[in-house]
Amino acid sequence: MPLSILVLGGDGFCGWPTALHLSRLGHAVTIADNFSRRRIADELDAPSLTPISPMNDRLTAWRRVSGRTIDFVELDIAQDFAGLRALLADLRPDAVVHFAEQRAAPYSMRDTRRKTYTVDNNINGTHNLLAVLADLEHDTHLVHLGTMGVYGYDGDGLEIPEGYLDVTVEGPDGTRYPRSILYPTRPGSVYHLTKSLDQLMFAFYARNDRLRITDLHQGIVWGTQTAETRLDPALVNRFDYDGDYGTVLNRFLMQAVAGHPLTVHGTGGQTRAFINIQDTVRCVALAIANPPARGEPVKILNQAAETHRVRDLARLVAEVTGASVEYVDNPRNEAAENDLRVSNATFRALGLDPILLRDGLLAETTEIAAKYIDRHNPDAIAATALWTRDNAPGLSSADALGRAAQ
Amino acid sequence: MPLSILVLGGDGFCGWPTALHLSRLGHAVTIADNFSRRRIADELDAPSLTPISPMNDRLTAWRRVSGRTIDFVELDIAQDFAGLRALLADLRPDAVVHFAEQRAAPYSMRDTRRKTYTVDNNINGTHNLLAVLADLEHDTHLVHLGTMGVYGYDGDGLEIPEGYLDVTVEGPDGTRYPRSILYPTRPGSVYHLTKSLDQLMFAFYARNDRLRITDLHQGIVWGTQTAETRLDPALVNRFDYDGDYGTVLNRFLMQAVAGHPLTVHGTGGQTRAFINIQDTVRCVALAIANPPARGEPVKILNQAAETHRVRDLARLVAEVTGASVEYVDNPRNEAAENDLRVSNATFRALGLDPILLRDGLLAETTEIAAKYIDRHNPDAIAATALWTRDNAPGLSSADALGRAAQ
Ligand SMILES: NC(=O)c1ccc[n+]([C@@H]2O[C@H](COP(=O)([O-])OP(=O)(O)OC[C@H]3O[C@@H](n4cnc5c(N)ncnc54)[C@H](O)[C@@H]3O)[C@@H](O)[C@H]2O)c1
Ligand SMILES: NC(=O)c1ccc[n+]([C@@H]2O[C@H](COP(=O)([O-])OP(=O)(O)OC[C@H]3O[C@@H](n4cnc5c(N)ncnc54)[C@H](O)[C@@H]3O)[C@@H](O)[C@H]2O)c1
Repeated sequence: MPLSILVLGGDGFCGWPTALHLSRLGHAVTIADNFSRRRIADELDAPSLTPISPMNDRLTAWRRVSGRTIDFVELDIAQDFAGLRALLADLRPDAVVHFAEQRAAPYSMRDTRRKTYTVDNNINGTHNLLAVLADLEHDTHLVHLGTMGVYGYDGDGLEIPEGYLDVTVEGPDGTRYPRSILYPTRPGSVYHLTKSLDQLMFAFYARNDRLRITDLHQGIVWGTQTAETRLDPALVNRFDYDGDYGTVLNRFLMQAVAGHPLTVHGTGGQTRAFINIQDTVRCVALAIANPPARGEPVKILNQAAETHRVRDLARLVAEVTGASVEYVDNPRNEAAENDLRVSNATFRALGLDPILLRDGLLAETTEIAAKYIDRHNPDAIAATALWTRDNAPGLSSADALGRAAQ
Repeated sequence: MPLSILVLGGDGFCGWPTALHLSRLGHAVTIADNFSRRRIADELDAPSLTPISPMNDRLTAWRRVSGRTIDFVELDIAQDFAGLRALLADLRPDAVVHFAEQRAAPYSMRDTRRKTYTVDNNINGTHNLLAVLADLEHDTHLVHLGTMGVYGYDGDGLEIPEGYLDVTVEGPDGTRYPRSILYPTRPGSVYHLTKSLDQLMFAFYARNDRLRITDLHQGIVWGTQTAETRLDPALVNRFDYDGDYGTVLNRFLMQAVAGHPLTVHGTGGQTRAFINIQDTVRCVALAIANPPARGEPVKILNQAAETHRVRDLARLVAEVTGASVEYVDNPRNEAAENDLRVSNATFRALGLDPILLRDGLLAETTEIAAKYIDRHNPDAIAATALWTRDNAPGLSSADALGRAAQ
């Protein structure tokens, strides 16, 4: 059954291919975005390696190749409460997919201006949306993109469950009290912090207003194109490789294609979770098709396909591209190695059969990195944000991820 | 040793007597406030029962009776980041006491405008402060006022510890993993939600920037005057009894003195924690004198003296005032009874010997409620905010507290 779906942040890296995919599935899709990502790319002088067309050209191309129309509204969901309310009152969407946040950890740590911007934008945006949904009472299903990064990365080998953790508290007299709690977060950056705060807001509105909410705790997304973005050059998706928005994989790929060794900090023992962009869009569609019932707690799913250590990732890219790997001193004070085990049982049960890095890396290299190498700016690759002014002890491995990846 | 102390929100109910107390102890005190509380009282047409003087008159009176000067800066810490930064850079305070938040649960639930205002004001204010402190690196000790209310009120008899909870997670193979976690919150209103979010921000900045932070999880504050506010009529503290800012005790007192029966909803079985305003100011001074070390996790203390069920509170007020108690149907769908046990071990160990309701209630009645009864507005007592439009099932007892108390 075709649904009416609003995609907030639908001009971004995950939002754009998701909007196209949902449109192709036959849903009536509206995108809202304030173009802040494009402005930040200008501000950092770090454009996408792939050339991103103006929104109008994107939508025209989509109409041409698919015969389908996507509506677009320029809107800042954090600043323009009235505009957001009017849009939702008018559309009465069945689902809202919420991608509209500042999502780069290094950017969120650059300076106080970017820290406060990230908190202001992400928290007010998410809360405005929740307050409007509670007020309108249209029983709209909210699907939000969270991150695996909120969990922190110093696991002691326990698999990270999907959102909730069963624990036991022991009373002074030995009585054991069972509790089911939100998995305690340990955010490694202000960006990750905002995602931890989002979680508590979702829990509150699901309980108090019985909003139906799905929160997708996503791993690092890799890859650029999807079946839909490949249909026309004007539909091409972003490929970011700068020190703020580029993930560790994209930066390895750029180093490889530019003929530099891949630089791994320390032992490269940090483990991260990954998912391909094609699977991101599939998972979002699956989440929309499987909403929680009204009155249920927030449905939290881990949206990740596999985990890798950074050094294994470098080795994989080296194998595919012929690049060499260079271990350099780690400039940061952090745990050298960490383990990460993640349950993705729900999406597996819903039929997800994910694309793995080993299988998709070569295509990504030739289709994107090699093809657009002439457009790249070598100065952009280095990460410059400092987590603390003095790189003080007390930094955990979680901090590294933000810099290396996001 | 006299310290330089900045009191944010120092025009408010807790902040004003705290500023006076710290000044009397010999510290150099500066107050910053944006007068939003006075504006909201106008907006609700619900002034304090006691007449609150303009800030200038308050400060002049304090100089007259104490010989000490308190500085004042009109500042919005949520909106004026540059002003906050300049103030802190200039003062280099040893401690900042942070009271500057919108603190009425019913107000935070009135409508979307007040919900978004509460989130915007409280989260940006707290985060601005943290970002500035991290940036300036003066090793300032931040003392924040949180609330017992974040814990929710459906305890199963387990005593609420001071901030952290030791739990055990059982792995699939029976291995037991011990964890020490932030006590999971279950906020009952948007106001309480902001305090839950504050907690995560504190944890992050204590870890990443090694800020020294004390978070005082305070019970419902009762009483009006302190040793210092009694020194001059222009120093008198607020007594709020309206449906938004008035606590359940103040509203019982007003009913009693106005000759109405005390109306208890349902069985009145909700248990709440209480502390007298005189002990609030003592506890804050104790917290300032006992900061955590740099690099330590947030020091979380429960600032509460005793707990009572609402019906016992009514009985106590009835005993003292001769009023009758009336049980009326509970208009809300909520758990009728709840238990609440709270550890206040740290403040007890630091010498807190609290004033109990049973001992202070009579003075409060004659000194405040009876004395100023002519100024009261009977229309203001009723609570009007609705937690959800349809008073839907799913409301917990935590919601009641917000309405009845805060
Ligand atoms: N890319 C990843 O690897 C990854 C991994 C885990 C989670 N996520 C999450 O997925 C979501 C989307 O990430 P992305 O990689 O597509 O980021 P992106 O920056 O490319 O896209 C975000 C989009 O939201 C828009 N936006 C931001 N603030 C807005 C506001 N206030 N009003 C309207 N529009 C606004 C931006 O202009 C941008 O187009 C984010 O929430 C991110 O945290 C991404
Ligand atoms: N009163 C209680 O029973 C109680 C109980 C538990 C916790 N607390 C906490 O103690 C703190 C103080 O409570 P209170 O009862 O004194 O409240 P209050 O409203 O009387 O005082 C808060 C003060 O902060 C100021 N303020 C608010 N936002 C500001 C901003 N953005 N910039 C500058 N000033 C701002 C207000 O003008 C007001 O003077 C609050 O954080 C509250 O949550 C109070």
